[in-house]
Formats: sequence, structure tokens, C-alpha cells
Amino acid sequence: MRATMDFLLHEWLRIDSLFQRPRFEDHSRETVTSVLDSCERIAREKFAPINRTLDIEEPRLEDDRVVSPACLSAASQAYAGSGMFAASQDYEIGGMQLPHAVEAAANGFFSKASIGASGGHLLTTGNANLIMTHGTPRQKEVFAHNELAGRWFGTMCLSEPQAGSSLADIATRAEADGADFEGDPLGQRYRLHGNKMWISNGDHELTDNIVHLVLAKISGADGKVIAGIGGISLFIVPKRLVDAHGKLTGERNDIAVAGVNHKLGWRGTPNTLLNFGEGRFPVRGRHGAIGYLIGKPGEGIRCMFHMMNEARIAVGIAATMLGYAGYEASLAYAKDRRQGRHAGPGRKDPGTPAVRIIEHADVKRMLLTQKAYVEGSLALELYCARCVDEQRTGSRESADKAHLLLEMLTPVAKSWPSEWCVEANSLAIQIHGGYGYTRDFPVEQYWRDNRLNMIHEGTTGIQALDLLGRKVVMGEGRGMKLLTEEIKDTVRQALATSLRAQAEAVSAALDALNAATVSALEGGISERALANATPYLQAFGHVVLAWQWLSISLTVLQVKTRGDDSYGAAFLNGKLQAARFFCEFELPKTGPWLIVVAGRNTTCLDMQEEWF
Amino acid sequence: MRATMDFLLHEWLRIDSLFQRPRFEDHSRETVTSVLDSCERIAREKFAPINRTLDIEEPRLEDDRVVSPACLSAASQAYAGSGMFAASQDYEIGGMQLPHAVEAAANGFFSKASIGASGGHLLTTGNANLIMTHGTPRQKEVFAHNELAGRWFGTMCLSEPQAGSSLADIATRAEADGADFEGDPLGQRYRLHGNKMWISNGDHELTDNIVHLVLAKISGADGKVIAGIGGISLFIVPKRLVDAHGKLTGERNDIAVAGVNHKLGWRGTPNTLLNFGEGRFPVRGRHGAIGYLIGKPGEGIRCMFHMMNEARIAVGIAATMLGYAGYEASLAYAKDRRQGRHAGPGRKDPGTPAVRIIEHADVKRMLLTQKAYVEGSLALELYCARCVDEQRTGSRESADKAHLLLEMLTPVAKSWPSEWCVEANSLAIQIHGGYGYTRDFPVEQYWRDNRLNMIHEGTTGIQALDLLGRKVVMGEGRGMKLLTEEIKDTVRQALATSLRAQAEAVSAALDALNAATVSALEGGISERALANATPYLQAFGHVVLAWQWLSISLTVLQVKTRGDDSYGAAFLNGKLQAARFFCEFELPKTGPWLIVVAGRNTTCLDMQEEWF
Repeated sequence: MRATMDFLLHEWLRIDSLFQRPRFEDHSRETVTSVLDSCERIAREKFAPINRTLDIEEPRLEDDRVVSPACLSAASQAYAGSGMFAASQDYEIGGMQLPHAVEAAANGFFSKASIGASGGHLLTTGNANLIMTHGTPRQKEVFAHNELAGRWFGTMCLSEPQAGSSLADIATRAEADGADFEGDPLGQRYRLHGNKMWISNGDHELTDNIVHLVLAKISGADGKVIAGIGGISLFIVPKRLVDAHGKLTGERNDIAVAGVNHKLGWRGTPNTLLNFGEGRFPVRGRHGAIGYLIGKPGEGIRCMFHMMNEARIAVGIAATMLGYAGYEASLAYAKDRRQGRHAGPGRKDPGTPAVRIIEHADVKRMLLTQKAYVEGSLALELYCARCVDEQRTGSRESADKAHLLLEMLTPVAKSWPSEWCVEANSLAIQIHGGYGYTRDFPVEQYWRDNRLNMIHEGTTGIQALDLLGRKVVMGEGRGMKLLTEEIKDTVRQALATSLRAQAEAVSAALDALNAATVSALEGGISERALANATPYLQAFGHVVLAWQWLSISLTVLQVKTRGDDSYGAAFLNGKLQAARFFCEFELPKTGPWLIVVAGRNTTCLDMQEEWF
Repeated sequence: MRATMDFLLHEWLRIDSLFQRPRFEDHSRETVTSVLDSCERIAREKFAPINRTLDIEEPRLEDDRVVSPACLSAASQAYAGSGMFAASQDYEIGGMQLPHAVEAAANGFFSKASIGASGGHLLTTGNANLIMTHGTPRQKEVFAHNELAGRWFGTMCLSEPQAGSSLADIATRAEADGADFEGDPLGQRYRLHGNKMWISNGDHELTDNIVHLVLAKISGADGKVIAGIGGISLFIVPKRLVDAHGKLTGERNDIAVAGVNHKLGWRGTPNTLLNFGEGRFPVRGRHGAIGYLIGKPGEGIRCMFHMMNEARIAVGIAATMLGYAGYEASLAYAKDRRQGRHAGPGRKDPGTPAVRIIEHADVKRMLLTQKAYVEGSLALELYCARCVDEQRTGSRESADKAHLLLEMLTPVAKSWPSEWCVEANSLAIQIHGGYGYTRDFPVEQYWRDNRLNMIHEGTTGIQALDLLGRKVVMGEGRGMKLLTEEIKDTVRQALATSLRAQAEAVSAALDALNAATVSALEGGISERALANATPYLQAFGHVVLAWQWLSISLTVLQVKTRGDDSYGAAFLNGKLQAARFFCEFELPKTGPWLIVVAGRNTTCLDMQEEWF
């Protein structure tokens, strides 16, 4: 994976051009290499060896606290020691001012080695970034800085038992805490009451404190709350209370762990049900978890979703890395395992030795499929991460463009690897045969771990509605136009090369996608159009991935043309072959999906409940 | 499921016509109903309640024996009590002389309630059937009859650690046991030495004895064995030795349990590594497991594969039933769970109550997809089981036709539900959202359990080679011609009805399949043609399923036309809608697969090992 990552970052995305910008001027290809080397090593030494242990020894609830295997602590300390919590932060607060693309790539090593061990770290970074963006100076100093130093970990508390995808329906309430609630140095002080579900890393013994970011509705004077999204605010709710300088006061906040979920996978990250303010641990003589408002009242969702693009890219990278882990495991197995002989007439002489299974065309097909999925996914995620950098440090025009592209691509970056890298993991099992179905090999765990990614941070169905119902139509289709131009630009370049056939295929698929978009949205956003949002997302995603592969192939040709043999011919040919595979085996799948979309198919909408 | 099963058996397959044949003359719709009722009840009462327990409390090795949860015993006894072990056997040996289609349907209830608890029973039936077909009268009486009565269970010992898909490479040897080896009343007596892998139910405490059917190679006078398939013979190797009347002699055979596999799922059926004849338990003073030849020397594979069509249908039914279990669980959940509001502009008023998620079009899509997959799979399996009946009891001409159809359809019956019902299970998880990822709901287990079906009894890749490399070309394409005629016959009937559009779609897909077949096989079976055998199988499978759905729809129209309202309009409309869904959302997928096949695509074949 490392060679591919280096190739994508340096040759394809040309991140080295970022080092000319003031924020990154201390960086160079060497510093990036050093960060990646270091993360790769820590991941290999501290994360990979505990991955199965974390799967077998599930977190459990003991006397109000969640207990995980002891080995998790050393991994977390090593991660904190790497400085990655503050990878993209300013030097002055201990950050590395790394481009986000590099941060995302470097974090990939940890996800690949053990998604369970690394899930909590990414959440902590996201939490701290949110506080750094929306918090008061004091909130940044007290909460975010402790997180960025790896001393405290963070969570995101959005869902509730009755409100998963539909956050408008959350019922957690926040009431002003006393007459002096506005005078607290940590922010307006409230008392929270409610139950939060699916809280990853909601409790653990890894750090002295846990910083929960909690969505809740502020009660009005009449005790009522505003219905819907507009009524939701965001609060910092620490597990243990702190003074104005971040020192633990010794008081426990009124937060009880009501349960630990027993999951199909991703078991290294405990997932909890937290009860806020039920009075189990009264604070200062009263029920209610103490929380500090962050951002303005009613802007909780806006603050939270400000970080959503990055959070969704992080999910896409997690899915990609699990796919990659399975690909590498099955590739190694296929090179080693002997079974059967070459297909075709007269070639099955039992007197000859069995061949290694990588020599079977169908095994090559399964490996090539995985390669096309996981390397394509990695490219897409790094491309999006690079857009985040452009949005942050590019010229106004360039930043706007990057922002718009990100808006369009995020639903794909979240959902595509989640769907297709699980399929890659299934192929990795298949290559192992019966062995793949046992826990003696790692591939079954990757498959289970990866299944979560279609669900959290917005299900595939939610991403589809976001794409077709919002992103495609926003600003009179500006985003769709921009993306189309970008793809056409790549196509134009490729038409003049040996990639002509692939360029034509991508161009045709893009035209079909645009035509289907127009047909689907005839008369505007309607229930009928949105009924086929998922097939739309599927087709859209495959077109995007085919574009990414075409673009990568162009870079390969450039490297070949300039006679650069630092990657080696085999490496470059592999990229071209994976691109060819994607174009010939995968891209045509957009046809069937778009038939449904363009025809405004009503089969699902027409289905009646009693007909099932 | 029951109503669909009744509809398929009685209306669609018209199994009642079988009751006119001598073998089934004592049967009637009433006796079939009674058998299905009884199996459905036992499955609900004895199997379903232990399904999760069997998943959590894995079988383990204790002092040379495999220990399973105690609850498994009661389920096995209840199954034996149902008489299903001998469902299709003659009355005179305690059988029920049931049609195989009914036997297969009835067994489905057990698979659906707990695949882990029922796996061993199906193996025992298959084992006994094989002995009834190829054994001597004494072997039948001693071994098969005890199995058919449920007193002993059976296994199939084919694979070895180095020989999974490639049975030609097995290394287990059999040597004549003494000078009198030919005089044993139980059959020619041999001593077996070798290691067998993936032996389901290879050891347990459920029955007094276990009858292993073991593939091994007979050593010649020079101690050497014949290489390849032709050297393989089949042996009955009991766990505990018996006398000529089947009475346990008190001697243990030289078979050691070398390990129990820790599996991803299907944990209720222990899966073992057995060492035969390593001398751990010497018999009569010598090393070597005692085994009795069944069938002729060198015909082991032929005997084993004689039962393979039925074994592969059984796998297809297992996959179907796991798919069905997930479908029903997610349907119930979708009818109950409230989340979000209808899509479309101005319809998301947070003041209104949340709707049940079955009202969302995308949830309907996921349910309808599952319905189309699992009911279509059930239809295909019952159709194949009905062909088995025709093969056994039809006229010569009709039996030959049924045999030929079975040869063509078995690779699909094995692989299609294995692939697509796992996808159905994934959708069942998705409908549950985060809850589906926890072990508080059953759907994650179904998904894990079902993943085995793509692997055992011949992987999907093996089925694909069987189909394209053998079945399609056998007898100068006789099978393909027959299947094409059968499909065209259904199309012809449907063209004259309201199903015209679907009939045309199926017809076009069939033509494309036949054209691609010709292109693929240009110049005969070649490595190049076989390189795309899997996409071929995928397209072939989807055409077959679309045909089955079209045929079912025709039956629905007939039932409607004759004014029969015993199934209810909702039930019948559901079938038509699922067929429509399959035709519009699924059948077009054959296009992309056939592009690869027809173009004799060499992308996978061209891929070089060092390019990965």
C-alpha cells in the first residue's frame, strides 16, 4: 500500500506544490516521508498485533465503567506519542501543520492495522477540530488542547434510541443551570437530561477525562423545546468536571453508562448507551449532566455538520483500509497456496504439481477486483482530503471550487468504499476458501469490521438522498456542472493518449449520468425521483471511480513518458491494468442503475406494505 | 414463507400430479400439509430458540471429543422423531415415500430456524442415501438404516488440508487389512491413513456412532497409488466398530479429532479436522482406521458425485432459508420502527409524528430486493427438487429431460442463493441501522452463517467452471438447448398476457446469453473462455431467475383468472411486484456481465502476478 500511497500523494495529487504555501512551508517530501514512515511503523508494531485480541476480548461493563483489554492502552499511548492528534493544527499549540491529505494518509496505517484500536483517535481529532472551529478561546484551551495532546479523548453524541438517522427527533433537553448560567468561564452552563445511543468510545479508562460533544434542545421558559433541527444546540459535556483551567475538580458528571453494545465487529472501540442527567451521579446536589454551550443556540447541527465532510472522508478511509488489509492478506495467500492446475483441455494432468492459486484466472479476477476497489477508494479519499487542503489554504476561487467539489464527492467518499470494500473483503474470504471462513485467518474479521461503514455517519440511503436531493440541485446544479467539467477535462487529456477507449467509455457514462439526472429531476425534487436515489448514488459513484482511475492512468503515462523508473514498470502496469479492469468490468454496471433512474421507475414506490 | 411455499408447491409446480404415480399414491395435499405443519412446528419450538445459543457457545474439543451445548441434543431428537431422516425412503424401511420437493421444502423450516442445528441432519440423510444407492445389502442394513432411523449420524470426508477444491490431490491411503480383507461381511476391509479437513459434524455426542464416508486411494502392490481422480475409492469408516449386525463391538476406530475449526458462523455444526489411522487408537493391535469399501475401487468420486446434485440443492436451500430469515426479521422491524418522515419537498414537518420506516421508498427497495432474491431462490430450489422427483419417478423421456435440466441448473441452484441471499442478509442488516450491527438482533448472524454457502460443496468459481466448461458444452450443447426451449416456452405463454414487457425482456436476455455463449466458446473450451466463467455464471443465473419469476407470474395470473382467492389479492400482487422488480432492477445486470463474456475479455488473464 505504501508505494501506492506515495504515488497518489506525490505524482497524482502533486501535494508537493502545497509546500510553497506559507502554512506548509516547513514541509517537504522528506518530512511527509518521515511522518508516513513513523505512522506505518507504530501501526505495525503497536496496532496490528492487538487487532485480533480486541476482537475476541470485547469491551465489557464493570461497575459503571467500560473495561477493554489492557493492550489497548499501549496502542493509544503510542498514537498520542506520534503527535497525530494535532497533525493538522498550528505549531503554536503543538501541531504539525501537516496538509490534511497527509494526515488522512498517515492515519490510514492505523485504521488498516486495527480499526478497533484507532476508531477512538479519529473521533477525538474530529471533536477537537470542532471545538477549535466553534469554541471560545477558553473552551479551546481547556478541552481541545487536552485532546490534541492525547491526554483526553472525545466523543460525538448525536443519536438517541428513537432518533438515529432522524436527528430532528432528538429528545435530550438542556436547561439553564442556575441564575448565573451565563457567567461560567467555560461557556453558558446547562443541565442536560437524555439518553444517547451508539456513542463510540463513550466510556473507557484510557484517559483521565472524556469530552462529550452532545446535541440537545434548550427548553424555553415554558419548558417546551423547538421541534426539528432548528431547536438543536451543541454542548461540551465532560465526563469529569474541570475548573476554568482544565484541572479536574474531582467531581464526576451525571453521565451513566447504560450499556455496551455487543457488535458484529469493530469491537476494539467500545460502543455505549449513555444516560445524561438521570441523577445516578448528582452534581452539586442536583440531577442533570453539566454541559457548556458551544456555538450559538439552535446552531448545533450546523456546527456538527461543519465537520461532517471530514468525518465522512474518515469513514471512507476506514472502509478503504479494511478493504486494503483483506486485499493484501488474500494476495499473500494466493501467492503461497497451491491448489489445482491450469484450466483448459488437457492441462489437468494430476501427475504435475499443483499450481499456486494466483495462477488461476478466477483468482486473478478476485484479486484484480479488490485492487480496483481498494486502490480506487484510496485515490478518491486522498483526492477529497486534498480538496480539504485547497479549501483551507487555496486562493479564494480555488477554495470555492474545492468546496463545491467536496460537497458533491462526499456522499460518494462516504458510501462507495463502504459498499465496495466490503465486497472486496468478501472476495478476500473467497480466495482463502474454507480457511477464510475460520478465525485462523484475518479476513473474516475485516469483513465484519467493515460492515459498519455503510451504517454510521449517515447510511448509504442517507448519502443517496443527500446527493440527489440536495447536492445535485444546489445552486441550480453548480456542483454537478463543475464535477462534469472536471471529468470532461480528464477525458479530453486521455483521448489523446493510449487511453482513448477508456476515455470514451467514461465520457459516455458521464453523459448518461447527466441525462438520467435531468430525467430524474423533471419537475423538481419529488418523492418519485428520490425513490431511486440509491441506484443513482451507485451509478454516480461508479462514474466517479472510473474517472479517478482514468486520471491515475494519465499520471502513469506521464511517469512512463518522462522515463522515471522509481516506481518500477510492474507497479505502473498494475495501475493501468486495474484501471482497465474497472472500465471494462465495473463501469458498464452504471447502465442498469441508470435505466431505473432515467425511467423514474416506480416499482418500489408502488409496492404496498401488505404485498410483502 | 409458508404461504409462498404452499403456492410454489401446489399451484406453480403442481406437485399434486405426483400423487397419481404409484410411489406417491398414498399422498395427497393433506399429507403434505401435515408434514409441513409438523416440521414448521418442531423447527419453531425446538430449533429457533437455540439458534443464538449455538452461535455463542461454540463447539469445543475436550479430551478427544467435541462438546456442543446440551440444547442441541433435544433438537436432534425432535428431528429424528419427525421421521425426516427417511422422508424419501421406502415404507418398508420406515420411510415416508415423500416427493423430494416436499422433503426439501420441509427441511427448509429447520434450516431457517437454525442452520447450525440442522446442518448435521442433512449430511446424515445424504450419507444414508449414498449408501442406499451404492452399498451392499448388508451395508445398507447396518449403516444406512441406523442413520435413517436417526440413531447414528453421518459425515462426508472429502477435503484434506492440501486438497480442498482439488480432490485429485488427496493423499489419504487405504491398504487391504490382512489376507482375509475380502471376506468381511461389511465389505472389503481396508486400513485408512490420512488427514481429513472441514468435516462437518466430524465428532459429537449426539448419537452412539458416526458413519464417516471417506475418500481415499488404494495402494497397489508396490505401495503406490494412482494419481488423480481415477485412483480414488470410497469407504465407510465408522467411529465405533460394529459387528455384522450393526451391534457396537466396544472398539473405538483409529480416528482422532485433531481440531475444531473456529468459524465465522454456522457454529452449531462442529467442523473438524480428523486424523485417520495415525495410531492414536490402535485397533486390534494395529495402526490404521478400519474402513469398508463401498462401490467399486476407483469409483469413489463417481459415487460421491452421484449425490452431488441433491447436496448442492441442499446448500442452495440453506442459503435461501438464511436469506428468508433475514427478510422476515427486517420486514417485521420495518413495520414497527419509526424514523424520519416522507421524502420530498415540504413533507418533513418535524411537528408530525415519525413514520414507520417501511413507508420510506428506499426501505421498500431493500425489502423488495430481499423478497425478489429469497422467494426467487426458493422457487429455483423447489423447481430443481421437483426435477429430482421427475428423474426418479417420471417416464423415461421425462426423466431424461429432468436430468438434463438438473445438470444445467445445479450450478445456479448452488451458487445463486449463496451469492444473492448473502446480499439479502446485508440489506436486512441495513434496514435495522445500527441495531442490525449488534447481536441483540438476529440479522448479523444470518449474514455470517450464510457466508459459508459460497464456499462449501464447490465454491462459486468451481460452479462457474462446471457450468461453462462442462454443462454448457456436454452432448454438443443439448442441455443449453433444452433450457433455452423451456425458457422460450414460458416466454411464449407470457407474451400473450399482461406480462408481455417482462417476457420480452427475458427473451432478449436469453438471446444475449446464448449469443455470448457462442462467442465465448469460439474455438472450444479454452483458458481464455474459462477466464470469464464467473461473470458467465452470474449472467446465466440472473436469466434463470428472471425466467422463474416470469413463470411464477404466469401462475399468479392463472390463479387470478380462475377467481381463486385462497391466497388473497395482496399475496398475489406481491408476487407480481417482486417479478417486476427482478425484471426491471436485476435482469439488466446481465448486460455488463455478458459484455465481458462475449468479448472474451482477457483483462484478468493478462494480469501478471508482479503487477498486483
